[in-house]
Amino acid sequence: MPFPSLPEEFFRPRSVAIIGATKKSGFGSGIPAFLKRIGYGDRLYLVNPRETEIEGLPVYRRVIDVPHRIDLAIIIVPKEHVHAVIRDCLEKEIRAIILESAGFSETGPEGAVLEEGIERLLRGNGTRLIGPNCVGLINPHDRFASTEVDFDEIRPGNVGVIAQSGVFGNIVADWAPSQDLALSGLVTIGNRIDVDESDMLYHFGADERTDVIVLYLEGAKNGQRFMKAAREVSLKKPVLVYKSGRTEVGKKAAASHTGSMSGDDALYDAFFRQSGVVRVSTFQELFDLARVFSREPLMKGPNISVVTSSGSLGVMAADAAFQLGLHFPDLEPDTVAAVRGHAPAWMNVKNPLDVGPSGLFGVALEATLRDKQVDGVIAIPVIPGTIIESIVDAGIDPSFMFGEAEKIRKAAPEKPVLIYTVGSNFWVQLVKDMFGPHLTMVSSPEAAAKALWALYRYNRFRNEAARG
Amino acid sequence: MPFPSLPEEFFRPRSVAIIGATKKSGFGSGIPAFLKRIGYGDRLYLVNPRETEIEGLPVYRRVIDVPHRIDLAIIIVPKEHVHAVIRDCLEKEIRAIILESAGFSETGPEGAVLEEGIERLLRGNGTRLIGPNCVGLINPHDRFASTEVDFDEIRPGNVGVIAQSGVFGNIVADWAPSQDLALSGLVTIGNRIDVDESDMLYHFGADERTDVIVLYLEGAKNGQRFMKAAREVSLKKPVLVYKSGRTEVGKKAAASHTGSMSGDDALYDAFFRQSGVVRVSTFQELFDLARVFSREPLMKGPNISVVTSSGSLGVMAADAAFQLGLHFPDLEPDTVAAVRGHAPAWMNVKNPLDVGPSGLFGVALEATLRDKQVDGVIAIPVIPGTIIESIVDAGIDPSFMFGEAEKIRKAAPEKPVLIYTVGSNFWVQLVKDMFGPHLTMVSSPEAAAKALWALYRYNRFRNEAARG
Repeated sequence: MPFPSLPEEFFRPRSVAIIGATKKSGFGSGIPAFLKRIGYGDRLYLVNPRETEIEGLPVYRRVIDVPHRIDLAIIIVPKEHVHAVIRDCLEKEIRAIILESAGFSETGPEGAVLEEGIERLLRGNGTRLIGPNCVGLINPHDRFASTEVDFDEIRPGNVGVIAQSGVFGNIVADWAPSQDLALSGLVTIGNRIDVDESDMLYHFGADERTDVIVLYLEGAKNGQRFMKAAREVSLKKPVLVYKSGRTEVGKKAAASHTGSMSGDDALYDAFFRQSGVVRVSTFQELFDLARVFSREPLMKGPNISVVTSSGSLGVMAADAAFQLGLHFPDLEPDTVAAVRGHAPAWMNVKNPLDVGPSGLFGVALEATLRDKQVDGVIAIPVIPGTIIESIVDAGIDPSFMFGEAEKIRKAAPEKPVLIYTVGSNFWVQLVKDMFGPHLTMVSSPEAAAKALWALYRYNRFRNEAARG
Repeated sequence: MPFPSLPEEFFRPRSVAIIGATKKSGFGSGIPAFLKRIGYGDRLYLVNPRETEIEGLPVYRRVIDVPHRIDLAIIIVPKEHVHAVIRDCLEKEIRAIILESAGFSETGPEGAVLEEGIERLLRGNGTRLIGPNCVGLINPHDRFASTEVDFDEIRPGNVGVIAQSGVFGNIVADWAPSQDLALSGLVTIGNRIDVDESDMLYHFGADERTDVIVLYLEGAKNGQRFMKAAREVSLKKPVLVYKSGRTEVGKKAAASHTGSMSGDDALYDAFFRQSGVVRVSTFQELFDLARVFSREPLMKGPNISVVTSSGSLGVMAADAAFQLGLHFPDLEPDTVAAVRGHAPAWMNVKNPLDVGPSGLFGVALEATLRDKQVDGVIAIPVIPGTIIESIVDAGIDPSFMFGEAEKIRKAAPEKPVLIYTVGSNFWVQLVKDMFGPHLTMVSSPEAAAKALWALYRYNRFRNEAARG
């Protein structure tokens, strides 16, 4: 059965009304200017009873006065006018509404009453509403957004992000490029009068451009429905969740932020552990795992290897991976022989594999990846800054020590390989340039371990589900 | 009683012998060239029976042939020559030896026998030895190092680092500048035939330039002595420890890395919890906490506030802090009034304090810092990239929204303030420029919470110890 879907008009509107457009600085003037700039000038209808012209466009008193069909309404009027404006939208048979205004249930009981009123207005209509207290969505593939973003920076890709509040959604979009994340979409759902995280899970679950779904959740609007949606969508593609509002203080903060009831964290945790949903435990992990899932194959078994030129960093990664339940098999005799053939006497050819300053990092990484006992690899290439600079200054290609990433990738395209490094700025940039296009970088040894664990765990969940 | 000390000759040698200097590329040629470059040419004595001249300097057959007093010997000969060379050093009455050669206990029993031989040679002498299987030390204040580093990059400061292996020490030094860490010294202790982590704790404990000590430990050489040293030094200055070799796989990797016995992790953990030593749990945390302890005051009580313009990030930080046992007191009426006076109707003036897009971040941060109920603050300024760019493009100083860091710092110099941000590259750089010089940046909401917790916990330990 296909997943329940949202109107196409949210994501690829042929015409947009902005209700609450103004000349005063703020969202009311920023969003019209932005939509005009990205090419919506000829299908943009501005509404405000107190204006006549903005950005060279005529301004209508009410949306029902617009003499064209409207696909999507973006509402940014003060909260006391929202009911009237929504009534107009319904009269105009607009199927998709993004309500960005704030001041509802996140501020207390009065706001909650306003929200209930909106819910009643919508009931029985086909019209769907995102918000309030949000900035709607960003669709990088089709270059549409209901909030001002820089489409020259945001790269279109395969990661769908569900955020709750507006500012957070914006800054995640801002941060994504430097985190090497390319987005299929980003939605902020705010206080969720109508469209909630479950709707968005189904949406990205069905979306062909989305391979990984990232969800920041303060609390599910409807726990039962969320668990059903998360379970069903997980069967199709990985869902990564950062669940906050875990503690008493966090719960209170979440309530006054988006009116969310965070619920019992232990219940969520039990659900995540039983379903295929991957729960991340830090904000950075969310980005690391999203990047890894968006680029690497799943891991077929729990057996990994660490290949490193720093024993210390190798120990850190090994500790973290072992603690999560991953295994370190003995390397096959062929693998050991392939490395030993070149190795100096002091080098221990085992797993984790520390090549030290032998220059054998590339040889070791490729041999280990070809090893049938190994399902995935954490690769930690490091080298003192002065040494690598003198090598590069001498015109020597560093791949003679660290291997060629493309060749390494081809040695085992079905196995995940994660790269972590630290060191001088020169070296870190060099690693990004050498390995970045073919393998996936992560931001810490611990994130590398967690990501491989998640690739394995999710693969196992899918296999078990397929077997029934 | 003063701490046991190491010879000054290690850190500020007036003359250095390099035993094993060669013309062949590698450490044997790199270190002489490096020491000459940093100004040691006139007090550098090279030793190698098979060379006569290197880098324009005469080469002696044996160190006893050098017609000058030698403060420090750096040994980089193959392991089979090490015994003979050390005998010469002792005959020459050299008080400080850095043995960089590898191939000892980290490779197996034969290497361990060689180490025992060295230990016997040293016994009863005043001579101290760092190594083997290390690169010795870096002293940025006096611009001396026994390994090639870039003194134009490494900033002298107040953080003393104890690492175990050589590569790791080098890359920590390489990475420190981008992590905003300024070093008083960095030592790699390798297999620890003689000088070990306890000696180095005492050294940095007594060193007037060192305010914080960072220790990467795979396993203490002598558990009893380590615990004594860590306890004693902690009373004087904070000691941050990353203890690896926590799991079976990690222990084995550590053993083949530096011959370390990692020991029972639960025992270490119990010790760290009972002493003032701060155990960090991730590699990044080590850098975050070192930066915070090197720049911020300790925290006098457990009561914190989070001030943020992203509710979501505020919830994350609050969850992490509360989970660690920090408290969120109600803000004082004066504080609430100071913020409420400017605040829009939708804003909840409470703790954690989410100012959203009100522009009141600076006002709220300063008021909260002055609040008598608050011992420290996590400040999370964020703003969508397009908005801040248009503000700056319009020639407006963003401090009108985010406050002036210097003024904020002066509002409560006795309270720690940690800054975390994410967003567009433009914004992240702007925050570094605005806040970096006066307040301390951390790399995640979780690190902010952990750092405040550690500042509080260490302060409490010191107070309790002072009361007896």
